[in-house]
Amino acid sequence: MGEIKNIAVLTSGGDSPGMNAGIRAVVRAGIYHGLNMFGVKRGYDGLVNGDIIPMDAKSVANIIQRGGTILKTARSDEFRTYEGRKKAYENIKKLGIDALVVIGGDGTFTGASKFIEEFDIPIIGLPGTIDNDLAGTDFTIGYDTAINTVVDAVDKIRDTAESHDRLFVIEVMGRDSGLIALRSGISTGAEAVLIPELEVDYNAIMKRLDSTRKNKSSRIIIVAEGDDEGGLVVADKIKENFPHYDVRVSILGHIQRGGKPSCMDRVLASRLGVAAVEGLIAGRRGEMAGLIHGEVNFTPFSKAIKHIDKVNTNLTRIVEILSL
Amino acid sequence: MGEIKNIAVLTSGGDSPGMNAGIRAVVRAGIYHGLNMFGVKRGYDGLVNGDIIPMDAKSVANIIQRGGTILKTARSDEFRTYEGRKKAYENIKKLGIDALVVIGGDGTFTGASKFIEEFDIPIIGLPGTIDNDLAGTDFTIGYDTAINTVVDAVDKIRDTAESHDRLFVIEVMGRDSGLIALRSGISTGAEAVLIPELEVDYNAIMKRLDSTRKNKSSRIIIVAEGDDEGGLVVADKIKENFPHYDVRVSILGHIQRGGKPSCMDRVLASRLGVAAVEGLIAGRRGEMAGLIHGEVNFTPFSKAIKHIDKVNTNLTRIVEILSL
Amino acid sequence: MGEIKNIAVLTSGGDSPGMNAGIRAVVRAGIYHGLNMFGVKRGYDGLVNGDIIPMDAKSVANIIQRGGTILKTARSDEFRTYEGRKKAYENIKKLGIDALVVIGGDGTFTGASKFIEEFDIPIIGLPGTIDNDLAGTDFTIGYDTAINTVVDAVDKIRDTAESHDRLFVIEVMGRDSGLIALRSGISTGAEAVLIPELEVDYNAIMKRLDSTRKNKSSRIIIVAEGDDEGGLVVADKIKENFPHYDVRVSILGHIQRGGKPSCMDRVLASRLGVAAVEGLIAGRRGEMAGLIHGEVNFTPFSKAIKHIDKVNTNLTRIVEILSL
Amino acid sequence: MGEIKNIAVLTSGGDSPGMNAGIRAVVRAGIYHGLNMFGVKRGYDGLVNGDIIPMDAKSVANIIQRGGTILKTARSDEFRTYEGRKKAYENIKKLGIDALVVIGGDGTFTGASKFIEEFDIPIIGLPGTIDNDLAGTDFTIGYDTAINTVVDAVDKIRDTAESHDRLFVIEVMGRDSGLIALRSGISTGAEAVLIPELEVDYNAIMKRLDSTRKNKSSRIIIVAEGDDEGGLVVADKIKENFPHYDVRVSILGHIQRGGKPSCMDRVLASRLGVAAVEGLIAGRRGEMAGLIHGEVNFTPFSKAIKHIDKVNTNLTRIVEILSL
Repeated sequence: MGEIKNIAVLTSGGDSPGMNAGIRAVVRAGIYHGLNMFGVKRGYDGLVNGDIIPMDAKSVANIIQRGGTILKTARSDEFRTYEGRKKAYENIKKLGIDALVVIGGDGTFTGASKFIEEFDIPIIGLPGTIDNDLAGTDFTIGYDTAINTVVDAVDKIRDTAESHDRLFVIEVMGRDSGLIALRSGISTGAEAVLIPELEVDYNAIMKRLDSTRKNKSSRIIIVAEGDDEGGLVVADKIKENFPHYDVRVSILGHIQRGGKPSCMDRVLASRLGVAAVEGLIAGRRGEMAGLIHGEVNFTPFSKAIKHIDKVNTNLTRIVEILSL
Repeated sequence: MGEIKNIAVLTSGGDSPGMNAGIRAVVRAGIYHGLNMFGVKRGYDGLVNGDIIPMDAKSVANIIQRGGTILKTARSDEFRTYEGRKKAYENIKKLGIDALVVIGGDGTFTGASKFIEEFDIPIIGLPGTIDNDLAGTDFTIGYDTAINTVVDAVDKIRDTAESHDRLFVIEVMGRDSGLIALRSGISTGAEAVLIPELEVDYNAIMKRLDSTRKNKSSRIIIVAEGDDEGGLVVADKIKENFPHYDVRVSILGHIQRGGKPSCMDRVLASRLGVAAVEGLIAGRRGEMAGLIHGEVNFTPFSKAIKHIDKVNTNLTRIVEILSL
Repeated sequence: MGEIKNIAVLTSGGDSPGMNAGIRAVVRAGIYHGLNMFGVKRGYDGLVNGDIIPMDAKSVANIIQRGGTILKTARSDEFRTYEGRKKAYENIKKLGIDALVVIGGDGTFTGASKFIEEFDIPIIGLPGTIDNDLAGTDFTIGYDTAINTVVDAVDKIRDTAESHDRLFVIEVMGRDSGLIALRSGISTGAEAVLIPELEVDYNAIMKRLDSTRKNKSSRIIIVAEGDDEGGLVVADKIKENFPHYDVRVSILGHIQRGGKPSCMDRVLASRLGVAAVEGLIAGRRGEMAGLIHGEVNFTPFSKAIKHIDKVNTNLTRIVEILSL
Repeated sequence: MGEIKNIAVLTSGGDSPGMNAGIRAVVRAGIYHGLNMFGVKRGYDGLVNGDIIPMDAKSVANIIQRGGTILKTARSDEFRTYEGRKKAYENIKKLGIDALVVIGGDGTFTGASKFIEEFDIPIIGLPGTIDNDLAGTDFTIGYDTAINTVVDAVDKIRDTAESHDRLFVIEVMGRDSGLIALRSGISTGAEAVLIPELEVDYNAIMKRLDSTRKNKSSRIIIVAEGDDEGGLVVADKIKENFPHYDVRVSILGHIQRGGKPSCMDRVLASRLGVAAVEGLIAGRRGEMAGLIHGEVNFTPFSKAIKHIDKVNTNLTRIVEILSL
């Protein structure tokens, strides 16, 4: 493998706030180190179809504060086939691209691993997903913004819950991971948090709701979408058990992906974007750049891929103690 | 009817941001004019059950910026009966309360009208509802905040829609009125706005979606909840007609009621709260205080009650022209 | 003057949130009516220097939510000279531009008036300034966003003022007009508001501060920058009179111009942008499009130019009554 | 020292967002463990003057989302004297208070150390300061919110800087530490960040401003208030060297302390509040509870007190690389 001169960056999977900060960091770090930089549109789909554009320092000006991804993102069925990946390889070779930085989650890195295996392309990944469900980094890019968006929404619902003495069941994102639910639950003083990693103990919930009646007029129960039950089912069960409660359901949905990235997500994406480029220059490949204990770290894709932490019982305890 | 010395204020119906600013203004204007002020908990329910507390200037300090209502709000079946209203009357007489200020919407004023008719209590109303569907005021307290909340949410969804080239159908509040939908639709560059006041012309929508394909990658369709079709039905129809679109639905729900009131809602509530008290002192009753063309105005409850404006065709034209 | 086929739009003077929504509306309304549209960079400076670009519907996509102005703005000394204006005229004639829409304030319309007088160019203006100091419109584009930004900042300062029992003097924008100060003062429960239109009565302020001591621990005094005294002077006088107060000063400064436009500013800019183009087509010129009592209105530049309303004593009364 | 039954909590020093979440966590964790809880008003001043109130679970309901501190904070000259501390000791003994949780920064812990030394009171500290300048915790309570407030303000100023092609010098908090400046600088794409820990190299700054002229129209320079030079001096130097720049200065000031705490600050305060109480129960004293690498940790006051990290050169490098 020779010296790296031309790097392309792409975003893939669900968009997350801070992806633009990551793109900007990759492009500018590359230029800083004298490389030529490219952007691939719509993830692996643009790789397969050759939708690749040169990027200079100005092309990423004034995007650090924007949600979404200026390079767009998409699923690519073609890239899942060998033929698709072969087309992708030919496209990047045609442009002289030596290496890739891919920003995304689990699926993104799986695709990258296949691509490396077959065509020996140096690739470094950045963890870009709101779910914070990857090993090899304490936080993923977008997670901090997403939990702040959830907290802001739940604060608003708390206003109306307080005014009406209502119980709200609020469903938040997190198909396989309850981290968004847990942190936003602690932050909004939720009376209970239901997550996919733990079985729901309705008796305990009902008991707590009952025992704390004198302290509270409104109640918030946060449910991760991946929980077996789902927000609507949970609400029904509560209504059954507590017919006197005025129960409402709110499914936060897609607002959780958008919005201006938080300071933390911008710094994280900026640091990892620089690290990815410098890692490639230093000969790294097939790894995800992450931040562990405040320091940049590289983890092989095989180990970063979808890692569900054992649920953080420190956090579940906090919910229980503080929702008196 | 003698001189007014003691006034009670209550909030009723769905909560809206700015109700607290209204409560504060009523209480402080009363004290400024040398009156004794009271607060009723949970709307007419607190009136029936005698849940009434004295309020001084300090009791409303530092609430102008808070969503919801510190007095809480509730529906009261009892107040709908003559017996309930009689109990309410006896409660306020016991405390020497001469007059009421009621903050709410349509239903609130209907109840107030009955109460005046039977017990001759001076009452002035303030328009507190996010729907902006009352005659006698250009804007209701809470409307401006609610449309800003909607715009903020749709901006976030636009980020993700842009990143994925998706079409989002977003359902906003407005059971009988499309005003939230219309203004937020204009503000977010929505490609179409569906409101209860107008029949949906799917052909026109489909044509517009088609004709503007080259200019836009993402699409937003705003649907008022009161529209015949509802967000989910609209989404299904679009999928049928445009199978190639990646269509998603988002129902914004209860976040639209909460949050810090906007500057406009705080000023509106403050002005109307003062006007209500000074109106009572001046002998007014059975009227709603509103703001028309920047000036305080009083409208009899019978005329303020639920008035659906003919849809503002100036605004529907703007949607059509600007969603090129 | 023949039929209008080509219109250019520019922004001039201090930037205000909603200018981009105005540009978008002008460009799209023109295209909707079959015209060719152009954008001028950096206000009259770009006119003088021929920095003019064609604009299509896509060029204004996804800008409605952004603060500032994508066309930029600047002062142009050259345009104040006849030679400068002549160059400007030649530039637009070269491109076949028949008419202009100028978005700005007082100075912008003065320049436009001169230009019309000398070269008979049809021009319509939009009121784009945070100061709300123009006749011919109830609100200027940017004012609503600016007062919300001020309110948000003062709410934050109130948190810290409350925590420390401090008195804050906060200086807000408004060189000739106290409107930003007045509305934000009412909205944040300020104990006093000092504006250029009214002489400061320190005795009254001191008396109020004294008489309300038992109700309040923190105090906020809002000062418009155009007030004779200025925030720092006001703070010194208070310290002199109330040596026991812990007095702090905060000058909000440039944050007041930026940020995402509010829903109201976006709707206002959208409506007026469409009106400007349709006004030009209908033969109007030398007028500012404004919104009076909810309806579009046109006012000759000579009457729109810098009009300071007699101070709204309705609003000053509200400050006095509510700051008990 | 016997078993702990009664704990009092206080906030001291400059207020920081998240202090209320900390108070709530301390009070509820205490009640959860069967203790009696008290709150001290205005920091050590309330201890000296016996301004101490009992707190139950309800007294801390609905405060997790509020900026400032409901217990207020103040400087206490009296507590710096032995006599003052003796009065404080007598006050808490009178109420049977066995232990304290103090939330604040450097000065707060110095006072606590003295108090322990002389009167052998078990005290645990929580790091409550926006400056993030304490050893023994990766982040202090309030820091994350403060940097997000700064980023939001700078984003707004960037809008206006872009529109006018201006250079803004923005002064942010940080008397002894450049951490707020550094992270907010990276997050807002600042062209330079000046911090007290590093000498200013004007030549380098000027060179960078010059070399990047073609990529950028606006410039942001972030200056920590503790920097030798200060925002105004820096601005003057730049004007001298670059007379063609339109230079403006903005001093963000007190808005940086207020506002709703971020999710991260709420979770941090919640975890540490629980840890403080459980630490006291377990026999700990004279230590600050902090979070290091995601885990709760205790550091003796003597080591936590004002520790200025060697400047994080990882972060200064990022500013340089990305501000192309």
